[in-house]
Amino acid sequence: MPTSAPTPVMAGIAPPPAMLSRINIGDFLRRAAQSDPQNIALVDGDMRLSYGELNRRVTQAANALLASGLRPGARVASLCNNSAEFVVAFFGVHRAGLVWVPINTGLGLDDVRFILEHAEASAVLVDGALLEGEPLRALLEQHGPTTGFVIEGAARGRYAAFAAACAAQDEIETPVEAGDRDVAQIMYTSGTTGRPKGVMQCHTAVVMAAFANAVELGMNREDVANAVLPLFHCAQHTLLCSLLAAGARVVLLRGFDPTRMLEVIERERISKMFALPLMYQAMLDHPTIAQRDLSSLKLCLYAMAPMAETLLRRLIERFCPQFMLASGQTEMYPLTVAFRPEEQLRRFGPYWGASSILNDTAVMDDEGRILGRGAVGEIVHRGPNVMQGYYKDPEATEKARAFGWHHTGDLGMWDADGQLLFKDRKKDMIKTGGENVPSVKVEAVLLQHPAVANAAAVGLPHARWIEAVTAFAVLKPGANADEAALIAHCKAHLGGFEVPKAIRVLDALPMTSTGKVQKQPLRERFHDLYAG
Amino acid sequence: MPTSAPTPVMAGIAPPPAMLSRINIGDFLRRAAQSDPQNIALVDGDMRLSYGELNRRVTQAANALLASGLRPGARVASLCNNSAEFVVAFFGVHRAGLVWVPINTGLGLDDVRFILEHAEASAVLVDGALLEGEPLRALLEQHGPTTGFVIEGAARGRYAAFAAACAAQDEIETPVEAGDRDVAQIMYTSGTTGRPKGVMQCHTAVVMAAFANAVELGMNREDVANAVLPLFHCAQHTLLCSLLAAGARVVLLRGFDPTRMLEVIERERISKMFALPLMYQAMLDHPTIAQRDLSSLKLCLYAMAPMAETLLRRLIERFCPQFMLASGQTEMYPLTVAFRPEEQLRRFGPYWGASSILNDTAVMDDEGRILGRGAVGEIVHRGPNVMQGYYKDPEATEKARAFGWHHTGDLGMWDADGQLLFKDRKKDMIKTGGENVPSVKVEAVLLQHPAVANAAAVGLPHARWIEAVTAFAVLKPGANADEAALIAHCKAHLGGFEVPKAIRVLDALPMTSTGKVQKQPLRERFHDLYAG
Repeated sequence: MPTSAPTPVMAGIAPPPAMLSRINIGDFLRRAAQSDPQNIALVDGDMRLSYGELNRRVTQAANALLASGLRPGARVASLCNNSAEFVVAFFGVHRAGLVWVPINTGLGLDDVRFILEHAEASAVLVDGALLEGEPLRALLEQHGPTTGFVIEGAARGRYAAFAAACAAQDEIETPVEAGDRDVAQIMYTSGTTGRPKGVMQCHTAVVMAAFANAVELGMNREDVANAVLPLFHCAQHTLLCSLLAAGARVVLLRGFDPTRMLEVIERERISKMFALPLMYQAMLDHPTIAQRDLSSLKLCLYAMAPMAETLLRRLIERFCPQFMLASGQTEMYPLTVAFRPEEQLRRFGPYWGASSILNDTAVMDDEGRILGRGAVGEIVHRGPNVMQGYYKDPEATEKARAFGWHHTGDLGMWDADGQLLFKDRKKDMIKTGGENVPSVKVEAVLLQHPAVANAAAVGLPHARWIEAVTAFAVLKPGANADEAALIAHCKAHLGGFEVPKAIRVLDALPMTSTGKVQKQPLRERFHDLYAG
Repeated sequence: MPTSAPTPVMAGIAPPPAMLSRINIGDFLRRAAQSDPQNIALVDGDMRLSYGELNRRVTQAANALLASGLRPGARVASLCNNSAEFVVAFFGVHRAGLVWVPINTGLGLDDVRFILEHAEASAVLVDGALLEGEPLRALLEQHGPTTGFVIEGAARGRYAAFAAACAAQDEIETPVEAGDRDVAQIMYTSGTTGRPKGVMQCHTAVVMAAFANAVELGMNREDVANAVLPLFHCAQHTLLCSLLAAGARVVLLRGFDPTRMLEVIERERISKMFALPLMYQAMLDHPTIAQRDLSSLKLCLYAMAPMAETLLRRLIERFCPQFMLASGQTEMYPLTVAFRPEEQLRRFGPYWGASSILNDTAVMDDEGRILGRGAVGEIVHRGPNVMQGYYKDPEATEKARAFGWHHTGDLGMWDADGQLLFKDRKKDMIKTGGENVPSVKVEAVLLQHPAVANAAAVGLPHARWIEAVTAFAVLKPGANADEAALIAHCKAHLGGFEVPKAIRVLDALPMTSTGKVQKQPLRERFHDLYAG
């Protein structure tokens, strides 16, 4: 045998052509459709789409997008709430090798315009219902892409009806070369400063997360799950992908209503549920709860915040025996950590649990040292679900991946049993109802008001929003403005979920000796603002 | 908005560094170890290795391999049967960014030498027990790599004891850059002609298969499974990976014995079983079966061949309610198709079932047209589990991926319900006990015998081997050789499983008008050779 250096393994061999070996978010749907095309994939009101039918529609959607002149790599923004047509559309975007840019429909128009321009969107998908709004229509007419499709609605202005455009296409897939690590979607998320950041995720990241979640959550063809949170958000999107990869059935809901949700659980025999703590509370307190048949429920997921012990005990007794808290980030596709059913009643507090099977999770100090149990540091991850970076922001990208790990901006600690405890946020960010709101963004808007001298925004405990955006303002000498006026000002410049739920005008803000606002005293003093 | 071509998405952004986002067969084991390091991962006789301990040993193994001078990309061959130390070793190979070349321990020495040389193996892992064999020891001394480790045994000649080499290493992982699509293993498989072919599989292919299998087979932390088939074979290897990715427990067995297997099911509470049809038959017919507690069994997988209806009905009644036939190939990492539990008693015959969630499956004609139900063609696949190619054989690689699909060499047909039926083999290959034996290889050896004028080898139905290698020989005028002499000749030139179970000397072989041997009349005439 030669003892010299071995021949490189791939010498002279071309890697498989892209369509042969590709990983694509649009592909696993086709693959799930193969084994049982009659099985129902999506329920949306009275509409029931089988896997076979969903797959055909996704093919037509991809063909319609390509027929409109879009070329692989082009960005297709969406301004859509949950609907089967939206699901068809975004899987079509992926299958066509286009890049999906989902825009939160709750964002202010300034941010919508920023995202459309920053992403250089070549096309937009927009709900017919949202197009009824004059300001959005005007914005899209003046600053939107010339190519667009109306989801659930008739053609309007430059934008064609998506359903009709798809129906005109044939059901034969167009081969598209889209690399595993090519960007599949850019989801914009709020940074602590400035404009939203575009998180680039590749096909491999999303597909690996979908498969790993399906393992973690034991998803299979027998499962029926709800999708009540918005699909433009990473949490509901990753779960939808997981369920469809596993051949399960997803019941779409357009907003949460406890009566409707309970009816759906019974009628559709929901086995895996995903909702926010407040939603579980509302269902548990519903007057008809005693008459409900909840026996189909096998696992209830929740996210965004821990649940109080009393609520959790009641839920486990009355609602479903298994509860699980799942976490993740747009930047590190969920789920990254999970507080598992068997741990739920063993420890209480802000527990995030243990790492997923998809990524490494560690606690790191500012010098890049990995810390052991009992030490507080930044929660960091490593794995195939990590973002490709922030779009057009190499500096923020490099910062997020310091020392070769993705930095979450959350501080945490392993407890003595190796369960991860959330300690604090490293950045000044309010997390309200599942959305990030940078304090500085709210403060900047308030400071633009002619009467405001200084302002501070914090998140305060709130039953519905988990954290409610709350602002404190100091007025200029002689100036006059009440809470209503300041809130009206915020509404004109912020997205709905970013507007403070309350604004208190104070004589002064607590300050450090170096002249920075101290937020902790404000949080403590107003801790019970929304209690009771 | 600009209507010109959009900015390329990745402009100016470096993809994540390899360790940040890497997919590596050695990584999912570490990730499974995070959430519950005390959980038992491997049972091997009296040895019980927890996930935490297994992960530490794999790190030490990777460090020991790197410390011996091996550099990422170098090939490390193994000649090992099932053991915990072997598992540690091959995961260590992957984690170190080395390329694993598992050699079937049943191969003849000519093929072992061929593989070592063809793969340019820089090191070898070899069982101490196998090194007791003088011919293998001589072969390795003369033609083996200078670097080597003895698995389960003391240092011998140039080869160090692996356990001692690992124990000398620390437990801190060495960062290694290994690309997702870099070759992770080269598994040699018999082609229809000539020497074994080296199938290159990348990390992504094996890891995606592991996750997809875990979904398909509903694997979770509660599962306990056996591993009785050899780990150097793709079927048992992919299942081991799936089980360890899902945090399940694997009980290793060193060969099949029905008494021992039944004891293990009871003692370890096996929930997911994998065995060959004959093994199930042997357990079912075991005198103690009536006293066995088999209540832990939730799913029994089988492979390589369908089961007779009577056997399957008895097994489902007595052994386990759920049976499933899983298939795949070294070239298209298993599983690719599955005949699922709910289908088992609905139809009988050589059914392979439906496609997995990981890959597309189609039936294709010789011109690359995908065929519908009822038409016979070659079974082809597409998906992330496809091989990177045959090592140093671009011609065979190109042929295998004609029309952008992987060609299996098996002929099949979708039935009216969309279930895949195996029809025939396109290539002249005998599949015996899970191993491929090319007919031409056996025939070539027989033709080397001075008394043989013509020879034909076929696979005939056999209870144990599924197909038994069977040969027919015509002697030269005046020559003399009986069956025993011809079998002895084969034993000297073939691997154990390749030697014909029977050789019949005939006056003539059935021939076509163009002078080719007709094998079908031989298969029909001798169909019941091994019956009863």
